[in-house]
Amino acid sequence: MIQLFDLASKYPEVRFSPFCWRIKYALAHKGLSWEEIPIYFSEIDQLPVPNDGKVPVLVDGSEVVIDSWDIALFLDKKYPQHALFDSDESRSQSLFVKCWTETVLHSLVSRMGILDFFGLQKDADQKYFRESREIRFGITLEEWGGNPEAARIGFIKALEPLRQTLSRQNFLGGKGPNFSDYIMVGIFQWLRCGSGLTIFDKADDVYAYQERLLDLFDGLGRSAPAYPKENHG
Amino acid sequence: MIQLFDLASKYPEVRFSPFCWRIKYALAHKGLSWEEIPIYFSEIDQLPVPNDGKVPVLVDGSEVVIDSWDIALFLDKKYPQHALFDSDESRSQSLFVKCWTETVLHSLVSRMGILDFFGLQKDADQKYFRESREIRFGITLEEWGGNPEAARIGFIKALEPLRQTLSRQNFLGGKGPNFSDYIMVGIFQWLRCGSGLTIFDKADDVYAYQERLLDLFDGLGRSAPAYPKENHG
Repeated sequence: MIQLFDLASKYPEVRFSPFCWRIKYALAHKGLSWEEIPIYFSEIDQLPVPNDGKVPVLVDGSEVVIDSWDIALFLDKKYPQHALFDSDESRSQSLFVKCWTETVLHSLVSRMGILDFFGLQKDADQKYFRESREIRFGITLEEWGGNPEAARIGFIKALEPLRQTLSRQNFLGGKGPNFSDYIMVGIFQWLRCGSGLTIFDKADDVYAYQERLLDLFDGLGRSAPAYPKENHG
Repeated sequence: MIQLFDLASKYPEVRFSPFCWRIKYALAHKGLSWEEIPIYFSEIDQLPVPNDGKVPVLVDGSEVVIDSWDIALFLDKKYPQHALFDSDESRSQSLFVKCWTETVLHSLVSRMGILDFFGLQKDADQKYFRESREIRFGITLEEWGGNPEAARIGFIKALEPLRQTLSRQNFLGGKGPNFSDYIMVGIFQWLRCGSGLTIFDKADDVYAYQERLLDLFDGLGRSAPAYPKENHG
C-alpha cells in the first residue's frame, strides 16, 4: 500500500501539515488507499531516502517521491484515472494557484496560528521548532504571532480573488474540484487541525467553499481530529 | 469583419484599455482579423446595443457581445480553432487569474498611472473621467495617484505569485500562452500605452515575460503607440 509520511503532533491523531493534506485529498480523489506514517520533527532523519528533510514523502513500492507538487504529478502519471488536472493548461495554471497560496497566504496563516502550531509540538520538538522559525522570521514566535486577529483580517482580505471566483463556480477546478482545490484545503486544514482559531464568518462564500471541501470523500477533512480548543493560545 | 469598440484617447493611435487588450490578443491568438473602432467616454452612448456603458464591445455579424470574459467564451465557442482554454478546468482556473488581477493588481496600476490616464483624455472627457473616478475613490485624482512609486513597489511585490510561476514555465498557460496570459498583457499594456512610467527592473522575470508577450503575433503589443513620455505626470 502507498505510504504517506506525515507531520506528527503531540496529539496522536492531530495532523496539520498543509502540504500533506494536499496529498491526502489527491489520493482520495483517485480512489487510492494509503497508510499514514507520522513523523516528528526530531525524527526527520528516519524519513525514507532520498528526502529533503520535509514531509510529505510518498512511498509507492520501490519509488520514493518528495515535494507535494511533484507527488501530484507522479500520481497523475502513474494513476491516470480521475486526473488531478484535466489538461496541460490546467496543470500550468494550478501552479499559479500553488504559488499564490505560498507567497500570499502562508505567512498570514503562520502569523495567525504559530503559537498553536508550537503548542502542538511535543517537548522534544519545541526547541527545534522555535529556533528554526525564529531564524526564518528574524523575530520571536511570540512577536511573529502576536496579533493573530490582524493576520486573520489580512487573510480574509487576501482571499478576495478566490471569493470572486467562487461567485461564479463551486471550485477552482470549476464544477468539481481539482488539485488547485486540494491546495486550498491544505490551507484550511492547517488552521482547522492545527489551531483553535475561528477564521470565517459563516456568510462568507469562502466558508461555504470550505464546507464543500470538507464534505468530499466521506468527510475526509471534516472528520480529522483538531487541536483541542481548550489549549488555544 | 469583426468590430471591436475600443477606448479612445486624445492621441489617435494610443489605446490603453486593459479589457480591450485582452480581446485584441485573443483575436490574434485565433488568427482572426478585426477592425478597431475608437470610442471616447463622452461618446459611450454611441456603442452598439445592448451594452453596459463599457468597452470592449465586440460585434460579429448580427451578434453584439460585451464584457471581456464573455467575449473570450464567445470566441472559443464560435471559433474553436486555437482555443483560448484547452479544457474546462483551464477556463475555470483562468477565471481565478482574472479575479486576482482585478482585485489585487488593478487598484495598484490605477494608483501608479491615474494622472497619466487622466492626461490622455481629451478635454471633453476630463470632467467625466475626474468626477466618476473621484466618486469611486472617495478622494481626488491627485490624492489617489499622489505616490506612484509606492504603488509601483506594491505592484512589483504583488506580482510574486506570477514571478514564482514563471520560474518553472514561460507562460501562465504553460509552454505557450492562453487567455490568462492575455489578461496579464492587458495589465502591461494599460501601463505601457497609458503612462510614461518605467515599471520593471530588466532583471525581473516578469519583465522577460512581458517581453515574450510583446513579441507575440508579430509584435502586436510592442508596436502599439504609447503615451508620449514628455507628457508624463
